[in-house]
Amino acid sequence: MSELRQNIATKEWVIIATDRAKRPEGFVQAPRILTQDRPEWEADCPFCPGNEELDLEVLRIPEHGSWQLRVVQNKYPALQREGERTRSFKGVNRQISGVGYHEVLIESPRHNTCPALESGTEVSLMLEAFKIRGRELAEDPRIEQLVYFKNHGERAGTSLVHPHTQLIGLPIVPYNIRARIEEARRYFDDTGRCVFCHMLSEELKDGQRLLAETEHFVAFVLFAALSPFHIWILPRRHESSFLNATAQELADLGRLLRQMLRKLYMGLRDPHYNYLIRSAPLHDPSSEYFHWYVAIVPRVTLRAGFELGSGIFINVTTPEDDAAFLRSVDEDHPIS
Amino acid sequence: MSELRQNIATKEWVIIATDRAKRPEGFVQAPRILTQDRPEWEADCPFCPGNEELDLEVLRIPEHGSWQLRVVQNKYPALQREGERTRSFKGVNRQISGVGYHEVLIESPRHNTCPALESGTEVSLMLEAFKIRGRELAEDPRIEQLVYFKNHGERAGTSLVHPHTQLIGLPIVPYNIRARIEEARRYFDDTGRCVFCHMLSEELKDGQRLLAETEHFVAFVLFAALSPFHIWILPRRHESSFLNATAQELADLGRLLRQMLRKLYMGLRDPHYNYLIRSAPLHDPSSEYFHWYVAIVPRVTLRAGFELGSGIFINVTTPEDDAAFLRSVDEDHPIS
Repeated sequence: MSELRQNIATKEWVIIATDRAKRPEGFVQAPRILTQDRPEWEADCPFCPGNEELDLEVLRIPEHGSWQLRVVQNKYPALQREGERTRSFKGVNRQISGVGYHEVLIESPRHNTCPALESGTEVSLMLEAFKIRGRELAEDPRIEQLVYFKNHGERAGTSLVHPHTQLIGLPIVPYNIRARIEEARRYFDDTGRCVFCHMLSEELKDGQRLLAETEHFVAFVLFAALSPFHIWILPRRHESSFLNATAQELADLGRLLRQMLRKLYMGLRDPHYNYLIRSAPLHDPSSEYFHWYVAIVPRVTLRAGFELGSGIFINVTTPEDDAAFLRSVDEDHPIS
Repeated sequence: MSELRQNIATKEWVIIATDRAKRPEGFVQAPRILTQDRPEWEADCPFCPGNEELDLEVLRIPEHGSWQLRVVQNKYPALQREGERTRSFKGVNRQISGVGYHEVLIESPRHNTCPALESGTEVSLMLEAFKIRGRELAEDPRIEQLVYFKNHGERAGTSLVHPHTQLIGLPIVPYNIRARIEEARRYFDDTGRCVFCHMLSEELKDGQRLLAETEHFVAFVLFAALSPFHIWILPRRHESSFLNATAQELADLGRLLRQMLRKLYMGLRDPHYNYLIRSAPLHDPSSEYFHWYVAIVPRVTLRAGFELGSGIFINVTTPEDDAAFLRSVDEDHPIS
């Protein structure tokens, strides 16, 4: 029998549809060019070394010599850096000028890589760079929310294959983030606890969906996973903002995030995925009840009309099976 | 300069990204097999005539002789008809047994058609069949929400190409529908008006995004369209439930819905799309402030990490340009 499960933090429902059940192995991707099989350098790739002058750079590490990563302004930004944040109301139409930031973190000079193929140290460096950029953007009073996201593969929305992640600084708090904050506040009022801290301790106790735990973080498949292999990585220390993560935490998270992405890469043959960092709004005094985290969403299924119409997803694997499958993947094995 | 726009009814934000702007013509789909070019009958299609015994039928029109449409139980249902609705709470984990309905409306005996290629009368008949089935499902006290949706084309989530629409009867009210009801209630409290009625009258006054108006309905591209050609069709008469639509209204809607889908078919070369009917929860006394409607979402762009992380969409056309483009499409022209 199918069951409906609710994510207690986001209030999202999912149908775990056992009548349509598929084994986790059923999501191993069909043969195609893997990330590692691409050329290491492509002359016409705007992010490959040699084309550095194409974009306006805002961060380079290391500062001198050959770079290891760079952050640049998106050439086709969704939002513009310059200008005033103005609101306009005309009848029922609400509008805000499109000011904000749209930056791109180029993760490596190498064209044929991705976090799964890098070392933990390299992934930690990306997180450090995010924090540096995020802190700078947070100084701008027009900005209310930072959104960090990676699109790996075309099903995840990539147009450029060179490994990169994006950071958007928004002049508003999105409705869906507000709703989560509001739910978290309600939970805190009712129980005196952060709902994310509670979830984390329950996942540790239960263990069925657990993938890995480190000194500072815990990774698990969500009880109410919206799609196969939907993973959250939660910091053990209660903290609402990614910008307050410590250097030790980011070093730890880099290794763990790399490990999770490598399990997906090896277990499912380089699936397309998004990962995102969810962090509290910049000006929200919600530090007691909100909790930052990383979400990983492999794009192995499609969102169809039912999902659009109801906001409910239909997941055809069970989170417990997915977790067992991912635990069994040996991510230390050299990738060949 | 880009701008952010908010849908006043759903509170969803969209970035209209003019720096990445694309003309509506840029979304004309690449050559591939169009719906009309498929064979009219396929022996191994479970929905083609000759395979009627494969599925459990719940409605057939006309009752005798060759059928024009049928409603059957989904062979691989997301939810099961039998069983009790039970809730379980275990720590932070909330669960409900997967009881409900999952029905499929087979829209035509012909394999190579879709609503755009049918007559308005035929589309109205589908809507009538939805209403008949919806009313029957509404009798079941375990069911709280009906979700009607069509997936046309694989990017919209279809696995079977034979023209069909689906109806799911849920044992819960989804979070995103609850949130909309709540917002609509708040608007009503603040202004004394239904937010959808207000939006409809403003769109009629403004006219820039208007696509068509009939005796009972108005079709327009949303001011805050989440993606190109995102269309709403609102009934002029305030009514929260699709199940209370009159026969005259459904006859009128059938023609209008067919006209909109035909404009998309001809203007964009048979794009993949979802359409859905949004209607109030069955047991919700929200009749004063909620308003049922049809949403059409062509799947011409992808939801990437930013959309997952923020709930905000980036739309690279302007709703006003999209509306002008669709108005210019002559949907009466024979399709060749």
